Amino acid sequence: MRAGVLELAGYSVTDLTETFATPSFLLDVADLRARAARFRDAFAAAFGRPVAVYYASKAFSSTAVLRWVHAEGLRVDCATGGELATALAAGIPGEDIGLHGNNKSAGEIATAIGAGVGRIVIDSLPEIELVARVAADLRASDVPVMVRVTTGIHAGGHEFIATAHEDQKFGLSLATGAARAALDAIAASPGLRLVGLHSHIGSQIMGSGGFAEAARAVLGLRAEAEAAGIEVPEIDLGGGYGIAYLPGEADLDPAVVAADLAGAVRAECAALGASVPEISIEPGRSIVGPAMVTVYTVGTVKPVTTEDGSQRLYVSVDGGMSDNIRTILYDASYTAMLANRVGGAETVRARVVGKHCESGDIVVEEVQLPADIRAGDLLAVPATGAYGRSLASNYNLVPRPGVVALGDGEPREIVRRETVADLLALDLG
Amino acid sequence: MRAGVLELAGYSVTDLTETFATPSFLLDVADLRARAARFRDAFAAAFGRPVAVYYASKAFSSTAVLRWVHAEGLRVDCATGGELATALAAGIPGEDIGLHGNNKSAGEIATAIGAGVGRIVIDSLPEIELVARVAADLRASDVPVMVRVTTGIHAGGHEFIATAHEDQKFGLSLATGAARAALDAIAASPGLRLVGLHSHIGSQIMGSGGFAEAARAVLGLRAEAEAAGIEVPEIDLGGGYGIAYLPGEADLDPAVVAADLAGAVRAECAALGASVPEISIEPGRSIVGPAMVTVYTVGTVKPVTTEDGSQRLYVSVDGGMSDNIRTILYDASYTAMLANRVGGAETVRARVVGKHCESGDIVVEEVQLPADIRAGDLLAVPATGAYGRSLASNYNLVPRPGVVALGDGEPREIVRRETVADLLALDLG
Repeated sequence: MRAGVLELAGYSVTDLTETFATPSFLLDVADLRARAARFRDAFAAAFGRPVAVYYASKAFSSTAVLRWVHAEGLRVDCATGGELATALAAGIPGEDIGLHGNNKSAGEIATAIGAGVGRIVIDSLPEIELVARVAADLRASDVPVMVRVTTGIHAGGHEFIATAHEDQKFGLSLATGAARAALDAIAASPGLRLVGLHSHIGSQIMGSGGFAEAARAVLGLRAEAEAAGIEVPEIDLGGGYGIAYLPGEADLDPAVVAADLAGAVRAECAALGASVPEISIEPGRSIVGPAMVTVYTVGTVKPVTTEDGSQRLYVSVDGGMSDNIRTILYDASYTAMLANRVGGAETVRARVVGKHCESGDIVVEEVQLPADIRAGDLLAVPATGAYGRSLASNYNLVPRPGVVALGDGEPREIVRRETVADLLALDLG
Repeated sequence: MRAGVLELAGYSVTDLTETFATPSFLLDVADLRARAARFRDAFAAAFGRPVAVYYASKAFSSTAVLRWVHAEGLRVDCATGGELATALAAGIPGEDIGLHGNNKSAGEIATAIGAGVGRIVIDSLPEIELVARVAADLRASDVPVMVRVTTGIHAGGHEFIATAHEDQKFGLSLATGAARAALDAIAASPGLRLVGLHSHIGSQIMGSGGFAEAARAVLGLRAEAEAAGIEVPEIDLGGGYGIAYLPGEADLDPAVVAADLAGAVRAECAALGASVPEISIEPGRSIVGPAMVTVYTVGTVKPVTTEDGSQRLYVSVDGGMSDNIRTILYDASYTAMLANRVGGAETVRARVVGKHCESGDIVVEEVQLPADIRAGDLLAVPATGAYGRSLASNYNLVPRPGVVALGDGEPREIVRRETVADLLALDLG
């Protein structure tokens, strides 16, 4: 290893970017798999039996990644026909797939039923009728459905990604009785089989409290349903486990949250005189987020005197808001580090910006970087695996980066870098 | 025409969506061309001679659109190699193309010089050296360059799209002397020829004041340069002309802003004892934005009781933040209308949301819609031509909509709708 050269999974980023160019997402496969295994083991240990862990593939989906997490015993959560098609292309068995979505089409539901998915998570009252109708058309019976419950609890990051308060599009309200009505409607639908209740409270959550509160709320509804003769075998507690983006931060520890949740579920079930249900969870970001790093090449370096007279070094890279929109979309924080050499000892206040024609095109709002950073240097931005490539655009007709897997045989692109020719192929003139 | 069916360019959206499905961007070609012509004519009339109008292709770029605006006498502003490649694929002559960008690569500069572009807009001091070096490598002389000046003035919409305050990545500061230094450096570079100064103050601007103030600032620098023997033939006043998104709003009138600007430029030149320079401008949104409408199909319709006890109808459509991220990225406002029939007389407070697995997936934050809106209805969202398809993503692996041109022969897709197969083609397994 050369001094100052960042290594990932035993490979130097200078070697990798010679082969794969920049910008690239670099995925540490062993880290990805270890994170998947950690959720599986932590929840199984806390609950004293297997807990189904659905990988929320919206965070990042590719057939290779789905195969790796499935090999670790995870199932796959899909939210659209595209995600479902990718899971099926990866060879994930239908029974290990769950289908979410606030606005599933009849076609998506038919594909899911045809594939024999393990569950369809019902998100509205009219959807019960729709799923029942599609099931009848396909002469399918016993279609496993869950009900997504809006518990009124929300936690975590940006308002856009809080999902269980009332004024948002997801789920069936506990407060208004819609969730309870859904259970009756499902019980009255001959083709459908209720497998459980679902709760998702938000994203990038850093404590267990909200999860436990939501679990108690859902267990209360379960007790009510069971008193009315409707069996609810399973509770899904959703995802939203937070990760570290900045130095000094730490991921939410799966062992801690699993122990807290197991304690809360057991206590609530005891208080209700109910059995402990099957449990499932849906981590996405916490599995794939920290497992990827984006590597960019530095271009224009521009010292700017701001309105208050202070200095800021604008460091432009060969990507930007097209490959990471989280910074400006959620006011998200990232860090960046020089990756190809030892920088000078002096550091400066810097902002990492992209090459797009927009002043909001910011990758890292504020970071200390070596004062001698210069064009041609490599810059690494960690923790970009979730909602990076998956939210990427072709803004300014910039081709999207590839995703390079490290540690599963030789380094290779599992998602191919786009070219300008790819973009023009959609242009029919 | 059937009652209540929206018509665009003489075609009913019900017929169009039967052929092209939803969601689709529908482009009224005559409207696009008329808007291009209006800028051309308004500025020529106000300045008493032709003004070069560069279409800012970042707003939306496809070869057909570039050919249509070029046929109206416009030139094409590009910000990346991808936009440049598209302009060249459209057959736009090099001299009618301008290249922008805060972080141009040597390759992008070489392509631009090779194509004989009309101007390269210099955005930093190191870029002068880079362009000179590439020009020398190509044995090119007389490479036309402009200098982008940060005037300290900003105006318009969201902070992300204000571009002439000091604390942002673009341009060379008037205040610190960087812009003046750039002029000297260009004069000392044998391969480069200074063609002018450039100012861009922001986006979605609704008054002339900021443009005029920026023009005066840039004319002051021009006078200073000419006193030092550096000729500055042209001033580009940039883009940022605002458009109507909501009922009751109006586009910034090109005739009004042209008249105000011509007055300000003449007065300032008279005060400085200088000739009136050549003028160019760079509208993008104001040409393509209002010329497109997105048409969606309604899916789940869900009444929600919000925390304050009021009612909101969540109307889900078959697209969302993947085809229009402006709503959540810039807190942008849109409207929506029922497009396939006459709705009931009663209206309700509604929010139009997408099908993505995220609560921020909002297309129209608040709009009154007929209370009887239902699954299968068509919903039209106007003014989506700029930064809609160009910022689109495949979030949740949702294929991006096509763009259908109306009024140039039979309706046809000028940008093809993606398929799930397109997405899987990038997945290398």
